[in-house]
This record gives sequence, C-alpha cells and structure tokens, in this order.
Amino acid sequence: MKTIVELIQEIGALKSKAHEKDFLLTWEQTPDELEQVLKVAEALKRMRGDNISTKVFRSGLGVSIFRDNSTRTRFSYASALNLLGLAQQDLDEGKSQIAHGETVRETANMISFCADVIGIRDDMFLGAGNAYMREVGAALDDGFAQGVLPQRPALVNLQCDIDHPTQSMADLAWLQEHFGSLDKLRGKKLAMTWAYSPSYGKPLSVPQGIIGLMTRFGMDVTLAHPQGYDLIPEVVEVAARNAAASGGRFHQVKTMEEAFAGADIVYPKSWAPYKVMQTRTELLRADDRDGLKALEKQCLALNAGHKHWHCTEDMMRLTSGGQALYMHCLPADISGVSCPEGEVQDSVFERYRIATYKEASWKPYVIAAMILARKFTDPARILARLLEEAKPRVK
Amino acid sequence: MKTIVELIQEIGALKSKAHEKDFLLTWEQTPDELEQVLKVAEALKRMRGDNISTKVFRSGLGVSIFRDNSTRTRFSYASALNLLGLAQQDLDEGKSQIAHGETVRETANMISFCADVIGIRDDMFLGAGNAYMREVGAALDDGFAQGVLPQRPALVNLQCDIDHPTQSMADLAWLQEHFGSLDKLRGKKLAMTWAYSPSYGKPLSVPQGIIGLMTRFGMDVTLAHPQGYDLIPEVVEVAARNAAASGGRFHQVKTMEEAFAGADIVYPKSWAPYKVMQTRTELLRADDRDGLKALEKQCLALNAGHKHWHCTEDMMRLTSGGQALYMHCLPADISGVSCPEGEVQDSVFERYRIATYKEASWKPYVIAAMILARKFTDPARILARLLEEAKPRVK
Amino acid sequence: MKTIVELIQEIGALKSKAHEKDFLLTWEQTPDELEQVLKVAEALKRMRGDNISTKVFRSGLGVSIFRDNSTRTRFSYASALNLLGLAQQDLDEGKSQIAHGETVRETANMISFCADVIGIRDDMFLGAGNAYMREVGAALDDGFAQGVLPQRPALVNLQCDIDHPTQSMADLAWLQEHFGSLDKLRGKKLAMTWAYSPSYGKPLSVPQGIIGLMTRFGMDVTLAHPQGYDLIPEVVEVAARNAAASGGRFHQVKTMEEAFAGADIVYPKSWAPYKVMQTRTELLRADDRDGLKALEKQCLALNAGHKHWHCTEDMMRLTSGGQALYMHCLPADISGVSCPEGEVQDSVFERYRIATYKEASWKPYVIAAMILARKFTDPARILARLLEEAKPRVK
Repeated sequence: MKTIVELIQEIGALKSKAHEKDFLLTWEQTPDELEQVLKVAEALKRMRGDNISTKVFRSGLGVSIFRDNSTRTRFSYASALNLLGLAQQDLDEGKSQIAHGETVRETANMISFCADVIGIRDDMFLGAGNAYMREVGAALDDGFAQGVLPQRPALVNLQCDIDHPTQSMADLAWLQEHFGSLDKLRGKKLAMTWAYSPSYGKPLSVPQGIIGLMTRFGMDVTLAHPQGYDLIPEVVEVAARNAAASGGRFHQVKTMEEAFAGADIVYPKSWAPYKVMQTRTELLRADDRDGLKALEKQCLALNAGHKHWHCTEDMMRLTSGGQALYMHCLPADISGVSCPEGEVQDSVFERYRIATYKEASWKPYVIAAMILARKFTDPARILARLLEEAKPRVK
Repeated sequence: MKTIVELIQEIGALKSKAHEKDFLLTWEQTPDELEQVLKVAEALKRMRGDNISTKVFRSGLGVSIFRDNSTRTRFSYASALNLLGLAQQDLDEGKSQIAHGETVRETANMISFCADVIGIRDDMFLGAGNAYMREVGAALDDGFAQGVLPQRPALVNLQCDIDHPTQSMADLAWLQEHFGSLDKLRGKKLAMTWAYSPSYGKPLSVPQGIIGLMTRFGMDVTLAHPQGYDLIPEVVEVAARNAAASGGRFHQVKTMEEAFAGADIVYPKSWAPYKVMQTRTELLRADDRDGLKALEKQCLALNAGHKHWHCTEDMMRLTSGGQALYMHCLPADISGVSCPEGEVQDSVFERYRIATYKEASWKPYVIAAMILARKFTDPARILARLLEEAKPRVK
Repeated sequence: MKTIVELIQEIGALKSKAHEKDFLLTWEQTPDELEQVLKVAEALKRMRGDNISTKVFRSGLGVSIFRDNSTRTRFSYASALNLLGLAQQDLDEGKSQIAHGETVRETANMISFCADVIGIRDDMFLGAGNAYMREVGAALDDGFAQGVLPQRPALVNLQCDIDHPTQSMADLAWLQEHFGSLDKLRGKKLAMTWAYSPSYGKPLSVPQGIIGLMTRFGMDVTLAHPQGYDLIPEVVEVAARNAAASGGRFHQVKTMEEAFAGADIVYPKSWAPYKVMQTRTELLRADDRDGLKALEKQCLALNAGHKHWHCTEDMMRLTSGGQALYMHCLPADISGVSCPEGEVQDSVFERYRIATYKEASWKPYVIAAMILARKFTDPARILARLLEEAKPRVK
C-alpha cells in the first residue's frame, strides 16, 4: 500500500487547472483533475484515520443551499466543511427573504462576504438546476472582480438535474478502493440499469452522472432501461464520446438481463423518464397540483409494467462469476423491506449492504477534495504541510 | 475547596469501563462511573471559569436527533459539543429522507462517517425511545466493526421514555454543589412528588430518572403521586434495589404532605399516568387524532381532581426546618404566572428561581463529561493535558 | 492609506465605555464609541483581507434569535461570529418550548450558560422589539450577578422596531470608505426619503436608524415622506437633537424632489406609516387576520397614491452634480425587475448595484466590532495581539 507521502507526490505530478473552475459536471474536468480529486480524497481519509487534523481554514463559512430533501449529501457536505475547518451556514430559502423577489445575483453576493464554499442541491426542475448554479457562479465571479468579495467561493454541485458529481466521484473512489486502482477498472463491465420502484419522480442525475463519469477511465459501460425511460439525450452523447476518448465502451441495451450478463459491477436504480420529468417541471412551475397528481398516477402505472426490472438473485447469477459488485446511492427500495416490490431483492441487498455503506463513506472526502482543488493551486503542497505539522485531530 | 489538580487526581483513581458503553440509563453505570462524570463535569466547569480551553477535538461532528421539542437540552448539548471542539449537525427528520423508508441501521451509519457523538431525544412513544437508541447503538457497533466507520461515535441519551440521564446527573451535580459533597447527601430525604398541571402528556422520564439515580448514593428517596399516576413498574423496582444496595432508602407514599414531611429536598413535578402514556402511544402510532383529543380531555379532567398536589408555602413549611431545597427541571408550571393553577406557588418558585437556574447550568458540563467518558479510556490524562497547556478560551 | 498598526493606535486613543452596555440604539453610544466600532470593523476587514485570523475565542456560542425573516443579517451575524471563533446556535422558537409559557427571564439564562453573544431581530411589533431586548439584557445582568452565568453575553440588536444599528453602522462605514473619512462627511447632504413600493408593512427601523445615526457626525440630513407616513416622533426628535449637538443639520420636507435637490447621498426606501404599524401591532397581537387583510388592502391603496415617490433618472439629476450616491439596505423594489413599479428605476439601481453590495459587505465586520467592543475593555490591545501573532486564516 502506498504511503501518504507517495500519494501526495502523485497528486503533485498531476496537471490541473481545477482551481479555475467550479465542480459542476464531471465532464468539464480533465482526467488528471478527476484523478486529483480521487487522490486528495484518499489522502484526507487516511490522514483522518491516522488522527491528523486536515483543517486548512482557521475560520470561514461553507454555505449550503438545499432545494430538495437530503440526509446523506447534507451530512457529507457538513463533514467535508468540518474536515477543512469551515463552519456550515444553511441558506434556508423558506426562512430567508429570497421568496420575496431577491435576485440570484444579489443573494449570491450577500451570502458570500465571508464564504469560502457554496454547495448547491437543485434537482427539482429539469433545465434549471445546473443553470441556476452557473448563474450563482457568474454572480460570484462578478462580485469578486468588482471588489465586493474578498475571495471567490468554490462552487460545488451537490446534485442537479444533469449530474450528481459528488455521488459519482464517491462511487468511483469506492470502485478504485474495491478493485485496487483506477487502472484495474479498465475494461471492467459496469451495468447502469433502470429498476422498478413504487415511487415516482426520482431524478436522472445519478444514472447520468454514472454513465458520464465511468466512461472516462476505459470501463465498458452498458445503459439499460425500459422503453420510454430515456435519459437526457445530450448526456448519453457525452457518455459515448467519453468512451471513445478513453478507450472504453458505451452501449445501450433493452433489458436488465442483457446488461447484467457478464457484468463486473451492477447499479440498478429507478428513475423517472426524461419526458415525464419535463412535463413535471412544467407542472411544478405552473403549480398545477391536479396535473402533478395525475402525472404521478400515470407514471406509477407506467412503472408497474416493469416490475421485472428487479435485481434478484437470479439476475445476479447472470453477472461475471455471479459475483458482480452491487452498487447503489442509497436509500434503495428493497423488496419486502422498504416496500413490497422494489429495485432489489432483500437477500442481494443484505449481502452488499456494508459495501454500499463503504461506497457512501467516500462522499465527505470527495467533497472536501473538490473544495481543496478549487481553492488552492497546489493541493499537494497544502497536504504535505498538514502531514508535516501532524496536529492530532483528537487529543 | 479542592484544586483542579486534586480533582483530576480523584478522577484518575476511579475505576471506570464507561468508554465501553453508551450513556443510556444511569443504572447501567457503576457508582464510580457516575462519580467520574460528576467530577469531570466539575473540572470542565472550573477550567472554563478559569478561561482554560477544553477543546479536545480539533474537528469532528456532534450529531443531534431531536424527536421532540427542546430548548434547554438542545442548548446544553450544543454547548457541550462546543466546549469539546465539535461542530453540531442536526438530523432534521422533516428535512431529511428518513420519512421515506430509510432504516435506522442505514441512517445511523450515513450520519456517522465523521461523527464523534450522537445525542438523541426520543420521549414520545412509551417502549420506543430507549429501544430506538439501542438500535442506533447496535448499528454503530456494526458499522465500526465492519470498517465502515473510522470511530465509534459516543451515544448520549438526551431524554427517552425511561430515563433522562443528562437531567438527573445535572440535578445530582447541583445537589453535590449545594450540600458540599456526594457524602453529605447520604441520608438526605428527597421527595419526588407528582404535582398538578393544566397540561397533559408530560413524560415520565424525569421522575423515573430521579428515583433511579438518587437512590444510588445513600439518599432517602420518597415517591408520591395520586392513585393511578404510576411510573413504569420496572423502574420503581430499580429504585428499590438501588436503595438497598447503596444503604439508602426508597419508599412510596400517597400524599404530597407525607412526602414533604421532614424532606431536605423536594422535586414536585407533573407527569402523565403510565397507563395513559401507553394508550397515548397506541393512539399516536395509529395517528388517531380523535382518540388523542378524547384522551387529553379525559386526562385533564383526571388531573383536575388533584389540584391540591400543589407546592405551596404551607406545604414547604412541612419540610425539614421549612427550608427544603426546591428543585425542578424547568419550565415549571407556576400558579398565577405561567398558568392559573399549577405545580408550584409563585412565591415558592421565586425564592428558588436562581437555584433552579444553577441546577440547569450543570447540564452542558455533564453532557461533555459523558462524551469524554465514552470517548477516552483515561479522561483524567486528557484533562491534565488541557490544564497543563492552559490555552486561553478567550484572548 | 493608514496601516493597520496606525488604525489600532487610533482605536486605543478613543474613550469608550462600550464594554458596559449592549448595542441596542446608536444614540446610546458616544461618538467615540461609534468611531471605535467603525475603526475596529475596518481593522478586522483588513486583517481578513491580509489572511490574518481574527479568532479571539477558542470556543463559545453566539446565539441568534430571529423573530422575523432575514437573509443578509442572518449571514452577516453568522459571519461575524465565525470571524471571532464563535459557533452559531439558533434559538428557533417554533422548535423550542418557548411557546409553552417559558418566561423571557428564564430562557435568557437557559441559552446563555456557554454563550458569549446573543443577537436578536425583533421588528414585528411596534413598542415591543427593543423592549424585549432590554428584558433579555436585564435577565442576563441578573443571571451574571447571581452567579448563574460565568460571563455576561454581549447583546446585539439585529433590528428592532426603533433602530437597525448593524445596518446604519454598516451604511456609515460604507460612507466613510466612499468619501474617504468621517471628517469628509461633515456637511454632506443626505436625503432619507420614502419611496413607493407595492408591498406593505415594511419596518421603520431603517429610516429611523439612518436619521438617528447620520446626524451624529455633522451631516446635513433631510427626511422626506408623503403626508401620514410619519416615523416614531421620539426618534425624529432624537435626530434633531443629534444634529444640533454635532454641528450638523436635520430638517423635514414634503417631497422627494426637495430632498434630492443638491443631495450628495440619497436613500429612497419604502416604509409603512407609524400609525399603520401601531394598528398592525394591535391586530397581530389579537391575531385578527381579517383585520390584517383589510389593513393591508387599505395601506396598499394609500401607497398607490404616491407612486411618484420614485427614484428615477430625472430625480437623480436633481442631486449634487446629478451624481449623488444611491444607498439601499437591500433588497430594493426595482421597477420592472422585482415589481412593475417600485422604489427605484432599474437603470439607476443597476448603476449603483455594486455600490449597494459594498455597502452591505460592511455588516459582518460591524457586528464583529460591536461584539469586541462589548466583550473587551481594550479592543485595541486584542487587535494588536492578533496582528502580532498573524496566524493565517487560510493555509
């Protein structure tokens, strides 16, 4: 196993301009920049395990804007801030005056006088979440350029309508841990498949994030979903281009069985069809509650026709040696546990339960690494200093 | 008065396995372990008074889960975390996805990747609160054993259906301060009595906590309540056994007058009958609002028959020298102040108001001491180091 | 430009008893005390800009009590606490038991065992907000005198029914920055005028705060509003007395045009008439929703008669050289942007937008300075030590 010193040397050798751009879509980052985040995350996790403080900020705020419910990401973000020495401050749009006509531009500046990071989750409206983040980013650029803000806060996408980079990067960090290295992922077959769930309106950002990221490092990625459950077409194109560029493979099939056949990794997860999400966005904007109820009913009925998209023991037997790694962003809809019929059979989930927890455990470190990459031109130097000082986290 | 150095020496001399168990019920802790918490709390309070920083964590999260309203305990817990250097992160089950089917096991791990402590208040459902805490504890044990969590967070009971250990331990710390030492409490007569209140459904955890703890150190504890206002029978048995073991006394009487006669300490407080709480639990689970309203009406009518359970000046004259120490966990129902007729006459409360504030002031330090006792095998060594370094809390 | 060392020397030369009183109304502070806050704020802002940590607390809580919505002030307060090393803890009266009959006296003590600061926003009820703050202050004095509290928390008015000192002091800091010095503000003509807004019930505290503060340093302050839109008469008298004492001027005119004529600074902003606020307070207390709706309708109709109170380009041309500095506490009602017709024409606002952001950016530092002034007898000595140690805020 590499020493932390060796890891830091590797980080220093990567070429990165990550300090010049926010982390909004993984496909806007170069392979070196993505690798930097993975390695910095690993260094931070290991330092913490060795009781070494990773506080690079003596003070400063990390702002969070959650426009949708969240447990995991909320705690991961709070943990990341805490790891680095920042205090969390939530912008609760219910409590604040934002509903009363403040512009995004103004608010972005008002919350940032002492902010080093802003994390945003906005995945409710198709076409709006990522766009909102860019609007905030532009306002921050302007505020910094005009001398309003003494620093440009890092902007981290905590899930939008297009991508869920903190999730997909944590997933990749877990795959790297599980299989031994990024190199060992080359050629591995990953099945990103739709699965049945009795709930509705689940965002597209996880499957999109997975196909957009896992195609970057030479993996063989298969996407499968029932007819009509398409993802955003542009993201599917991104995945295809990524695979071509990385020497990997990306293709789509029409059944879970085909996708699972020979897979090394399976990621069965429910999502709503792209077109349903578009209609839903229009109804949400129009605050058309009857329309939303009708759409939900219609969508649930549609879902119900696809209950056989179920990650069962039989399905798992189709995978490579019957031993594929099961992945999930959690919470999973477990048949007979969290719902009568769901995404995954209980015995399958239980066998991989601890694995999914370990998958999730990377998120705080990945987020912290994204922040370091944006705030410092040379994260390796900062890490080296932390290691040298070796202040104990706990007395 | 002892020096802090002497206090730390005494802490070091106590035998404790507190680092191996959560603080869920005071009667699961040995006398030495309880004494350790009291002495560590005192050391922390005095260090803070001497402007000495007690931060033992450079970073780390303290999670709070409040399933019922709280001001005092919320602030005490936040203060305890801050005293030790931890940042608070609230799990708001309304905001989070917990309502959407996550299991306790999963959530306990998801919030704990960077958590050193979890404090839980869950006192709404009889038979459920303490059980929930143990379920969380088992999930944390599992997560730590399986390598998901890099540390096992300490679990602190911030009030459950059975016990309210942070309250009763703060009460004991206050009694120790007031009477001079734990030894001086031997033989002191404490009256834990029901008192009338125009409200309904107050938890049993305070009276249960008091009779369960105060019988551990040789006190003479009397429990009194109107017929039908029983506590959980098992806890009453615990109190009887404790008294026998500690050389103290525990008995029950049927009137406030008998309990107050010759008492050194009185703790008059309203609670709901055990059986009403059982029915209420069933109705809450069934979400039977009409049933709950009917039960409230019935219970308030029942209460109204016992308005003479009132801590008046006349009643206080029955106590030892007419000078018993009045205690309350606050807020008290003060007749003519917070309600027309309540638990305590206004002049009695006003005379002891500052005393009840001092009683409450121990809570942050008691909670911090519980955390230290769980997280460190040798808290005395940690305190000695803090004292030696003597970093100023305020410049 | 002054060095930070020179600034600290100037702070040390000012006579201040600010450590003996809370910051509740600017007119309770002497000119030296106000100047101290301005200079400390500037020193803190410059140290942060130079990456010097300004943490004077190693631990401690800063409590916030927001009885009305807030974004700007909430973040400014959180930033101020963070700058100094305190952790924020919000007293959410919805979540807490305060609604259940706790007295202010008790709560003030219960939240303060480990608190160094309490910031309160309470501007809903005329005659109540500032009074509530004083009640809290008296309870804290009592708790400290009686030995309940180990320290007397500083109390900061984050907006009340009478004054908004963190806003007006930030405004003054901005004017000082913009015009070069406090001295250069002497004789400058400031127009504090009412402006039309399609919303209702905006508090009086901003215009009152402005006329109460800006008259302290020799400025020529004009107040203008439509008939019936009076401010609290006592505050208007304060402004007149202040102007007389400082060698400035204060007078009232009946049109925006008169106020703008030759003005160096304009502050056009909507507020509700004093008498409407009185009626509203009575209706709010009585929870008379129909009455409130009727009052709103009536007040909006009243407002609609004064749409020509509009800060247009034409209006700006009346000011000194057509170049007056436009100020606003934000968010402004911008015609055609946040509402069809509002306080200010869009092109005017856009020209001064960055200026209003800079105005707002002073708030965190002003609040931190108020805290330092209350907690330390000699803030200059503390700042000198921070500068000498020069610990980097960011590694």
